[in-house]
Amino acid sequence: MELFLLSNGKVSGESELLGYAKGPIQSMLLSKKIRSAVLVPYAVIRGNYDARAAELENSLGIQVTSLHHFDDPVKAIEEAECILVSGGNTWLLNQMLHENGLIVPIQRAVREREIPYIGWSAGCNVATPSIRTTNDMPVRNSVVLPALGLFPVQINPHYIDAHLSGHMGETRDERIAEFCAVNPSEYVIALREGSLLHVSGDELEYYSVKAQGYKVFRHNQETHEYFDTQALAEVVPFRCR
Amino acid sequence: MELFLLSNGKVSGESELLGYAKGPIQSMLLSKKIRSAVLVPYAVIRGNYDARAAELENSLGIQVTSLHHFDDPVKAIEEAECILVSGGNTWLLNQMLHENGLIVPIQRAVREREIPYIGWSAGCNVATPSIRTTNDMPVRNSVVLPALGLFPVQINPHYIDAHLSGHMGETRDERIAEFCAVNPSEYVIALREGSLLHVSGDELEYYSVKAQGYKVFRHNQETHEYFDTQALAEVVPFRCR
Repeated sequence: MELFLLSNGKVSGESELLGYAKGPIQSMLLSKKIRSAVLVPYAVIRGNYDARAAELENSLGIQVTSLHHFDDPVKAIEEAECILVSGGNTWLLNQMLHENGLIVPIQRAVREREIPYIGWSAGCNVATPSIRTTNDMPVRNSVVLPALGLFPVQINPHYIDAHLSGHMGETRDERIAEFCAVNPSEYVIALREGSLLHVSGDELEYYSVKAQGYKVFRHNQETHEYFDTQALAEVVPFRCR
Repeated sequence: MELFLLSNGKVSGESELLGYAKGPIQSMLLSKKIRSAVLVPYAVIRGNYDARAAELENSLGIQVTSLHHFDDPVKAIEEAECILVSGGNTWLLNQMLHENGLIVPIQRAVREREIPYIGWSAGCNVATPSIRTTNDMPVRNSVVLPALGLFPVQINPHYIDAHLSGHMGETRDERIAEFCAVNPSEYVIALREGSLLHVSGDELEYYSVKAQGYKVFRHNQETHEYFDTQALAEVVPFRCR
């Protein structure tokens, strides 16, 4: 498998989409001689699918076509050289993956044919077993929570431990702690802005543009910050570096 | 109907639960000669149900019993003088209301027998048609979105328009705008900390301890801030003051 699971699309002050992760992504594209990708655009609600694809073309230097241009999106996934899954609204993205019959085709492409999967924000959420650790609003009337399960542990993207003065709603830490209390056998990996997990073959690496760590939350255990992936060795089937 | 729909339980720096709304709540309790209430505690994940009830007894000066003490919670709702619905995790609260068969009993108590309903945060969310405008994480594997529908418009509690520096996830305004884009015929009322909507009989009033307004979001319309309820006149069946 080749997975890039990014917390977010742009870091603060950056104009280029995926700019902070361009180095490792482009070196992978080059080594695999990949020249095109399909974009799964369904998380984008208030933007334009083609504009998002154009941004990615500029940033990554490959041809990017949004899935809505294909009469048969399943076939498009089957023939894709690379799959890009945009951020936006996680609920809508996951629902559309299920409604368009794309869950199994994407799983097969990534797991069996080793097609690279690059997802940020909502696109990172749907790569985990379910979207139970999303930060977004459940905008639809019907919802499905199981997701692609390409990566075996829940990830909370856009993780932040700062707190707005006067805001009395749950902090992110409290929300994740609630998740862990309800699901005591599960871990949650909290990825800060500008950081990503990279699965390449059987290896798992962590990268942060700001040299910040990620956190691991478990019920009734102290939360720690990590800079390599060895803390995940017991819950992922990858070599952790 | 007698509804108190509060954005939150405590305002910043306040130690007393519901302290900022004590005035209007206690005057209602007094005029209706109410001396006890049942607490629907299910949103509380990491706290103690009885401690929450004790906090409310201290604050409101009436006897408060958490629903988990009753063998038959439906009967407890049927016999309640007043219903308090605590904040916490909206998803868990709504799920438990459905699983314990409490949706219709609470609707009947509030609509037919005019039993006062006081809900804050998650308890405010579940009073609306659905929990699609919650800020919480969907911690459970199965979820139900339709809620009590005592109040006919979606409310976003803990509304805040400030933004944490460096955070690249959606702002609250962007999340609500996404909701409106997906549901263009609906309104969302955004209630800041320390504010509430009060339905008494056929009248709807707005109250804010900090003299701040609430906002109304609609798709493709400018968002405004209001200090009385007249902006809601076309979407609620109440006299708006």
